[in-house]
This record gives sequence, C-alpha cells and structure tokens, in this order.
Amino acid sequence: MPFAEQVLNGDIRAAARLMRDIDDNRPQAVDDLKQLYPRTGQAYIIGITGPPGAGKSTLVDQLTASFRAKGKKVGVVAIDPTSPFTGGAILGDRIRMNRHATDEGVFIRSLATRGAMGGLSRSTSDVALVMDALGMDIVIIETVGVGQDEVDIVKAAHTTCVVMVPGLGDDIQAIKAGILEIGDIFVVNKADRDGADRTARELNTMLEYRMAPEGCWNPQVFKTEAQRGTGIEELVSEILLHRDHLISSGTIDTFLRERDERHFVDILRDSLYKKVLDYMATDATLDRILTGMGNRTIDPYSAAEQVLEGMLGER
Amino acid sequence: MPFAEQVLNGDIRAAARLMRDIDDNRPQAVDDLKQLYPRTGQAYIIGITGPPGAGKSTLVDQLTASFRAKGKKVGVVAIDPTSPFTGGAILGDRIRMNRHATDEGVFIRSLATRGAMGGLSRSTSDVALVMDALGMDIVIIETVGVGQDEVDIVKAAHTTCVVMVPGLGDDIQAIKAGILEIGDIFVVNKADRDGADRTARELNTMLEYRMAPEGCWNPQVFKTEAQRGTGIEELVSEILLHRDHLISSGTIDTFLRERDERHFVDILRDSLYKKVLDYMATDATLDRILTGMGNRTIDPYSAAEQVLEGMLGER
Repeated sequence: MPFAEQVLNGDIRAAARLMRDIDDNRPQAVDDLKQLYPRTGQAYIIGITGPPGAGKSTLVDQLTASFRAKGKKVGVVAIDPTSPFTGGAILGDRIRMNRHATDEGVFIRSLATRGAMGGLSRSTSDVALVMDALGMDIVIIETVGVGQDEVDIVKAAHTTCVVMVPGLGDDIQAIKAGILEIGDIFVVNKADRDGADRTARELNTMLEYRMAPEGCWNPQVFKTEAQRGTGIEELVSEILLHRDHLISSGTIDTFLRERDERHFVDILRDSLYKKVLDYMATDATLDRILTGMGNRTIDPYSAAEQVLEGMLGER
Repeated sequence: MPFAEQVLNGDIRAAARLMRDIDDNRPQAVDDLKQLYPRTGQAYIIGITGPPGAGKSTLVDQLTASFRAKGKKVGVVAIDPTSPFTGGAILGDRIRMNRHATDEGVFIRSLATRGAMGGLSRSTSDVALVMDALGMDIVIIETVGVGQDEVDIVKAAHTTCVVMVPGLGDDIQAIKAGILEIGDIFVVNKADRDGADRTARELNTMLEYRMAPEGCWNPQVFKTEAQRGTGIEELVSEILLHRDHLISSGTIDTFLRERDERHFVDILRDSLYKKVLDYMATDATLDRILTGMGNRTIDPYSAAEQVLEGMLGER
C-alpha cells in the first residue's frame, strides 16, 4: 500500500516515512503528495518565528498543550536552517517537547533540509500538507527568523506570531518594517525579565505608525512567560480571533491564493532546475562551459543563454 | 559609453551605478557583465562571516587599512540579508568605515537584495566581478553567517575567515561540523573579553578532530581585538599564507572550477525561471492552476509537470 493511502488512514509511521522522503528530496514522494493533495485544506496553520533565544520552542510546547486540552490534534514542524552557528540548539530544544511524546494527538517533526535554496519553504509546505492529510487540526510551523528563507516559510501560515524577548539591546532598536509586515500577532516572551514593558511599548509604537485601515486586522502585542504558562490562553484566543477575522472579512481567499502561488512556483522552479541538470549531463556541455569560464573565453551569462536556447528551441 | 567600458577605465561612479543595476536585478546589467567578464580574475576574494555582534565590520575596517598600507586597492561587499530582526544593524555598522570615505583606493558597497532566493549569492558574485574589473586587488565579502544562503555566499571567497566571540554561552557549544567546513581561518575577536581563551581552545579541539591530511591546509585559530587593531597583522599574514598554499598546492584550480560552476548554475536557474514566468503569462495558465488548487481539482505537482512539458515539448 502506498504511503499516501496509509497516511489518509491516519498511519503515523507512514506519515513519518513520507516526511523523511520529502526532506531527502526523493522523487517518489511526489506521487504520494499528488494523491494526498485533494484531501488537504482542513488544517489551520500557525507560524511561530523570532530570533534565537526568544523561547519559541517552549511557547510552541505550551500552545500544543492548550490546543490538545481543547481536543484538537496538533502537528509541529520545526525548521532547523542548519545554521553553522546555531545548528545544534534547535534539536536540543526539541527534547523539551517530550511530554507530548506518548500523545497520539501530537505529531512533531524537525526539518533539516540543507542545500537547495528555496527548497526549505517547499519542503515545509509539503510536510504541512502531510500533517493536514493525517488529520491534524492545527499545524504549528516554528522557525528561527533570521533570513529571507525563514520569512518565506512563515508566509505559509494562516496566522503568524512574531516572538520577541526583552533585553536584546541594540537588536530590538534595529527592527525594520519587515518584521511588522509578517506578524499578525506579536509576543513579548520571558515577560518577567527587565525591560519587558519597554519592549512591548516600543513594538506598540511601531505598530501604531502603520495602523491598518478600518475593517483590517490590527496586530496586537501580548506578553507571555512560556516557561510558567502565563499568557498562553490569551494568545490562543487571539489566534482564534485572527482566524475568525480572516474568514469573516474574506481576506482568507486572497491569502490562500497567494500561498498556493508561492507553493506552485517553488515546485515548478525545483523541477525546472532538475531538467536543466539532466539536459547538461547528456553531453559535456557543463564541462566545456567551465573550461571556457576558467580561461575567460566564455562568460557565464552568454553560456546560460545558449543552454536555454538549446533546451527551449527557437520558441 | 556603456558602464562596462567606464568601469574598465576605473570610473567609480559607473561601477556604483552598475552595482545598483545588479542589486535591482535589471536586465541591462547582464550586457555590461558580459563585457567585463574577460577582464576579471585578478582580484583576491576574502570572505568574513560569523554571528551578529562578532565585530565583523570593525575587523573588515582594520583589514582594509592593513591592505591599503601595503598599497593594495580594496573593495568591500557587505551583505545585508534584510533580516527582519537584524536588518538595521548592518547599515549602522557601515558608518564606522567612514575613515576610508575619501580614499579612492577603497570601494564599499552594501548589498540588500531581498526576495528571489539564491539571488543573493548570484548578485554577490556579480558585484565582486565589477570590483575585480575596476582594478581592486582585494575584495572582502562580509556576511552575517546565519543560514544556508550566507554559507553559499562565502563559498565565492578564496579565503574564508570565520569570526567568533567569547561569551556566546550555549551557542558556542552548538557549533556543528558546518562551521568547521567553511572556515580556512578562525578568528576569536574581542579577545580581551572573559572566556576568549576558552573559546579559542574549544575551536582548536574541534579542529584537531578533523586534522587535514598531510599537504592539506590546516585551519588555525587567531585572537584579535579589532577595535584596538590587535592581531590584525598576524591575521593578514595568515590570509596571505593561505593564498600561497592554494596556489602552490594547485587546489586553486579545483576551487575556481567549483566556484565557476555555482556561479553559472545560479545564473542559469535565474534565467530559466524568468522564461517560465514569461511562458505562463502568455495565457491564463497560472490563473487556471491556482483556481484548480483552490478547489483541490488540480495538485501543484502535476500542474508543474504539465507546464514543463508544454514549455520543453516531448524531449
């Protein structure tokens, strides 16, 4: 029986194997995803992003517990961008989630895709689809928000929570418009620390500058102490409020269409890239180009144009 | 007169304009790059990477001063990955470089490319080529090492220096193999701080585990206080030693070929992607696919295959 069928029957082990195939970029995963696709679109996706050390994993742990208490099945996709500098930390954090280890209503996967650029947002979307097909009501995507890649990842979420902490010093001053644009909800975690009120106030001031027009969603700032569970219920209520707003205002249609476009274009770009590599492998094209670049008789820009013309013909 | 010709005549203003066109991804920049390419390959490229707050900008400033004192022209490409969390800081750092502002032998550009994934490493290579064509002897690429994108960027450098600081706490423990692989030289900056010796010792221990075979380059750990200029000359000597090793051992040939391949493939992928967007724009293909995805009658994997077959024919 193919993985897809097993996943639709709620088989956790088959889902785990399919996700590993996705992470490893194996071609057979695509056939399973094709079969799953028509049965997806039910899960509500929540993105959690913020700088290293903001306590995102603990927050995700608490959100998971809260949604479980409401009878919801929860999937968690934790993204490890295989940073050479913070790489190991995230896996360590995962250990904290252990209290859900024996709960069949919780499914946690770490994605560690390295290499292919743009591949990470595609794999994340694909893994979220598998969790969706598996029957998870809530899918939480947790990512360290450090680069454009990670920003693209959270764009797949219906509701994005940006998590900050007090005492980041200059860094908090350095927040640019970018962070305000991706957050539907802002969280100041570790709110028992000195400077929490100041951080919240600064965020509020920045948000006021870009007050949304009437009828639009206005992001609010929440304070939490994830370690002690303080502020979690308020945060969950706000997430549900944002979901209601998406639906009642009709903005969910635009959101879904834009998200589908990004997902489709990611897939298309990946496939295209594989075709080019195949094409160049058929003769010694790449070798000839690299030799030419080496002695400066060929430039890579003209070479790329020639390869494309060869592939696409004179159309 | 096209920019390319002006750049080859050493016109700084034309070079700045061409770099802006590259950063903005304007098609006409490609014609200039084609003309410049045969005249490049002279500059020595140094990559400086490390976590935020490691003092990379100050170090780059000191390296620039040292190479200038040796009569070398220095270009600096500072990469701002437009992180929503650290975005503003890097531009602020640039102000410190002001002491070179009136020196015609120093050319500094910040790259802020956002959006297109993989675009950043391509733009960086292109901008480094322009600096090369302009006659810069040394090109320093400075990037915050946080994700795969940034790791790809420093792979364009002949010599990569990985900069660490004492007191990163747990983070230093979290260093994985990745960081060891990209560094040709390791720098513990802010070496006057508590824990500098411990950080250096830990790095040394990790490096010993992967002692290179005889005849290969063995990365060393250097301590610097960039703020006071301490340790800079030793670092510069080591960089020059690494350059000599690359040449005398012949590994430079492999390095250049791999670097050229990445650059070419980046360009090819970009061009191909533009072709696909053009192709889909000719009729309502994308619109039809997105509508189908919305009501789950089309899956994005099959849709991508169909578009590719349409573009490439039955080959």
